[in-house]
Amino acid sequence: MFEIMDGLTRLQCRSLMDISRGLPKTASLRLTHKTAPYQRHVSTSTQAPDKQRVVILGSGWAGYAAARTLSPSKTQRVLISPRSHFAFTPLLASTSVGTLEFRAAIEPVRRLGLDEFHQAWASNIDFKNKVIHVEANERGDVSAATNKPQTKGEKFQVKYDKLIIAVGCHSQTFGIQGVQEHAHFLRDVGDARAIRLQILQAFETAGLPTTTDEERRKLLHFVIVGGGPTGIEFAAELHDLMKDDMSRMYPELLKHCMITLYDVAPKVLPMFDSKLAAYATDAFKRQGIRVKTNHNLTGIRREGRHLMLKIKEEPEEVGASLVVWSTGLTQNPLVKQLVDTEIQGLGKLAKDPKTGGIVTNSNLEVQLRPTEGRSETRTLDDVYAIGDCISVQGIRYPATAQVASQQAVYLGKQLNSNKSYKPSKPFAFKNWGVMTYLGGWKAIHQRDADNLKGWAAWVLWRTAYQTKSMSVRNKVMIPVYWLVTWLFGREISRF
Amino acid sequence: MFEIMDGLTRLQCRSLMDISRGLPKTASLRLTHKTAPYQRHVSTSTQAPDKQRVVILGSGWAGYAAARTLSPSKTQRVLISPRSHFAFTPLLASTSVGTLEFRAAIEPVRRLGLDEFHQAWASNIDFKNKVIHVEANERGDVSAATNKPQTKGEKFQVKYDKLIIAVGCHSQTFGIQGVQEHAHFLRDVGDARAIRLQILQAFETAGLPTTTDEERRKLLHFVIVGGGPTGIEFAAELHDLMKDDMSRMYPELLKHCMITLYDVAPKVLPMFDSKLAAYATDAFKRQGIRVKTNHNLTGIRREGRHLMLKIKEEPEEVGASLVVWSTGLTQNPLVKQLVDTEIQGLGKLAKDPKTGGIVTNSNLEVQLRPTEGRSETRTLDDVYAIGDCISVQGIRYPATAQVASQQAVYLGKQLNSNKSYKPSKPFAFKNWGVMTYLGGWKAIHQRDADNLKGWAAWVLWRTAYQTKSMSVRNKVMIPVYWLVTWLFGREISRF
Repeated sequence: MFEIMDGLTRLQCRSLMDISRGLPKTASLRLTHKTAPYQRHVSTSTQAPDKQRVVILGSGWAGYAAARTLSPSKTQRVLISPRSHFAFTPLLASTSVGTLEFRAAIEPVRRLGLDEFHQAWASNIDFKNKVIHVEANERGDVSAATNKPQTKGEKFQVKYDKLIIAVGCHSQTFGIQGVQEHAHFLRDVGDARAIRLQILQAFETAGLPTTTDEERRKLLHFVIVGGGPTGIEFAAELHDLMKDDMSRMYPELLKHCMITLYDVAPKVLPMFDSKLAAYATDAFKRQGIRVKTNHNLTGIRREGRHLMLKIKEEPEEVGASLVVWSTGLTQNPLVKQLVDTEIQGLGKLAKDPKTGGIVTNSNLEVQLRPTEGRSETRTLDDVYAIGDCISVQGIRYPATAQVASQQAVYLGKQLNSNKSYKPSKPFAFKNWGVMTYLGGWKAIHQRDADNLKGWAAWVLWRTAYQTKSMSVRNKVMIPVYWLVTWLFGREISRF
Repeated sequence: MFEIMDGLTRLQCRSLMDISRGLPKTASLRLTHKTAPYQRHVSTSTQAPDKQRVVILGSGWAGYAAARTLSPSKTQRVLISPRSHFAFTPLLASTSVGTLEFRAAIEPVRRLGLDEFHQAWASNIDFKNKVIHVEANERGDVSAATNKPQTKGEKFQVKYDKLIIAVGCHSQTFGIQGVQEHAHFLRDVGDARAIRLQILQAFETAGLPTTTDEERRKLLHFVIVGGGPTGIEFAAELHDLMKDDMSRMYPELLKHCMITLYDVAPKVLPMFDSKLAAYATDAFKRQGIRVKTNHNLTGIRREGRHLMLKIKEEPEEVGASLVVWSTGLTQNPLVKQLVDTEIQGLGKLAKDPKTGGIVTNSNLEVQLRPTEGRSETRTLDDVYAIGDCISVQGIRYPATAQVASQQAVYLGKQLNSNKSYKPSKPFAFKNWGVMTYLGGWKAIHQRDADNLKGWAAWVLWRTAYQTKSMSVRNKVMIPVYWLVTWLFGREISRF
């Protein structure tokens, strides 16, 4: 609450400036730019030579939080990411069904006022010369985080004094046929938008007088693969949309609707204790959502206006219009390449044998493999890594937003406090617990031995997401959107 | 104000229902549908035989307003439109620069609770048998209103007792090379979204270190063709975005920005008196927006990352990243076909020699051409037409939202009041005046001999658009969005 009030006070000052902007001015557009002319060449020299140039790769939970934490007075902040925003991933499911606006779940990087931002992919890193090779994302894809192939653009180089690797992971598809092509990943706002258009279009197509009932059942079958929090929350939000809104908008179609969640494991939500997981499964059963554990999806193909899914345990293919895929993570191409490339005179980066990720020490410094005859890894100077793409030596943290953002804040503060990186204590993760929304204003929450379920957990879920939102704008607007949805129903406009 | 209060009272009832929805329920999804099973075949019989089946073609200002006006207790309301929403066109310019949310400018047709809605194009009308031939818009394009070619889907037929043709017009491109392909029309929310992504991407591309200053000037040159209210308002909103927001986000690029408005006529805003038009031109000049009247654009081609425009009056081609086209209207393909097709035993529809539109009498009944040797047109029974696609015999109304919606309300009320269409008085247009936003919190307004300009006109402009919004949701939300934009700046997220 204090955080919000503080924000509003700043806003009031801002508003006074705005009023003055509203008054007639004679200054023309061409005269309004405020700063020094743009630096033409790829920045190698810092404008303030006393500041270290810290380059961050990635604008997810880790990269964006690091950029926010770095002090503009002490560091020159440079961010490189193919997408120009941060996505508040836990709210993407809500945006995909219209409970929240898309913009409630994103924060434009440009608002951070960094020294430099490049909308680009890092294609390679020359650790020896402290140079990053990048390729511009010129199409500006809004779902750059997904696995889909990307067209790249102009190539250029960016120098660093300190480097933070926070490129995250890609979605794991296990090479299953058709997943890359036909499934949605719900990892960025572009995914949420595509899912939303698909759901709404499925209803319109099902509503055509020429559509048969058999076809309607296929079009209105929505499948989720993966019973982790993302899959469960999407199923819950989708069910709310059907029950509260589609039931009024398309009453005649509701009887054909079905939501099915498949998981290969014997139970969903493995990170929760078995009582809470059972509570979730029961809640879904009462709502009519089918949960099929011990089921393996082995292929997806398109057939006319819908998809056909092959399930190993079921004799016949299953028709559906939407498959949302959330089964786990795999390293992204840059990390795969970095951990297997020889660095001249230094050897290779240390690689986690299980995840294939980059290994850091407990100060989050990137490690090199031990030299022959020795067992300890060595530190690669001035290179740090955080988030889903790393393993901290000796400790395997879960690949969650909590871990990534806590690592980012730790690292950012260390870099602010001291030019030569000498942390007084190693990174320590503080577990705030896990939460999942279950639909119908119910949720579950677990922290160490404390469990909470039902309506109270739902209140906690909403409060946490509102207060954890990054910008004051979204802290203010998210409750407004919730109120509006409660008053008027979910938004079913397509754009 | 009364309208809003009335709406809120209804909302309060709605909210009580919602609270009950939040409580635990045992009913499953499959049990929640409320109405009779869906009618399979294309509806020819009405479920209530005493109600007339009124079919409306189009969901623009004319069609949507007619659907809202028709009484559900007196008519069976059927709407056919390729897009599933109504677009509040005067606010599209605001949404394209992020002053307003996209959804503030659209209303989903499904919210009207009509008896039937088909997301489809009418491809032909059999007036003899009272049957409409339609083709489904299965891709569900969000910018169906534009001239872009469309993929069509399933074909089926829809019967009517009374028919309202409200299909509107397409944008006029005068066959100029490249316009169809490269220009944006700003007629639907899909257009606004495409414009927005184009502007934001142009800034990111211009910001790349490899981009030359010459290329930057092309990428950050935004062109508007057509000096009517749509073109002027878009230029004004775009200038506000540059001055208020981009100047902070991309300070180093602002010196390369330029907005140019071209018009073939010697002055812009021909519907305003010359003093107000001069006031607008002066305001633009002070803001640094170039207004080039007596200029003819003769071609657009793509060259790499930008467009090249050929202007008849200028020796060299002009580079730009965006062309917004708003020069006038042409009949849409259905109307072109209808006015030239022989109806068995009845002859052809009367056609306006100048616009090519459908001619109606002053009761908005569609007219047939006079039979040989006679001079009066004849009425085609049970077929009405409203909006931009018609000419009312003897009177040429401007092709505006005001005219279209007033015609819709007139027609809807007449159809509600009497099964046999016998209006007691002909349609009469009540002119509420014309308004245009000029940027920097200034506008102009003209009604008959009354003129208003500057800040007061801007207040009137905002008030009018807020109160004229169709749904209570948008009446409430539009001022909220304005407040948020004022506090936090315009939204520059991309999705």
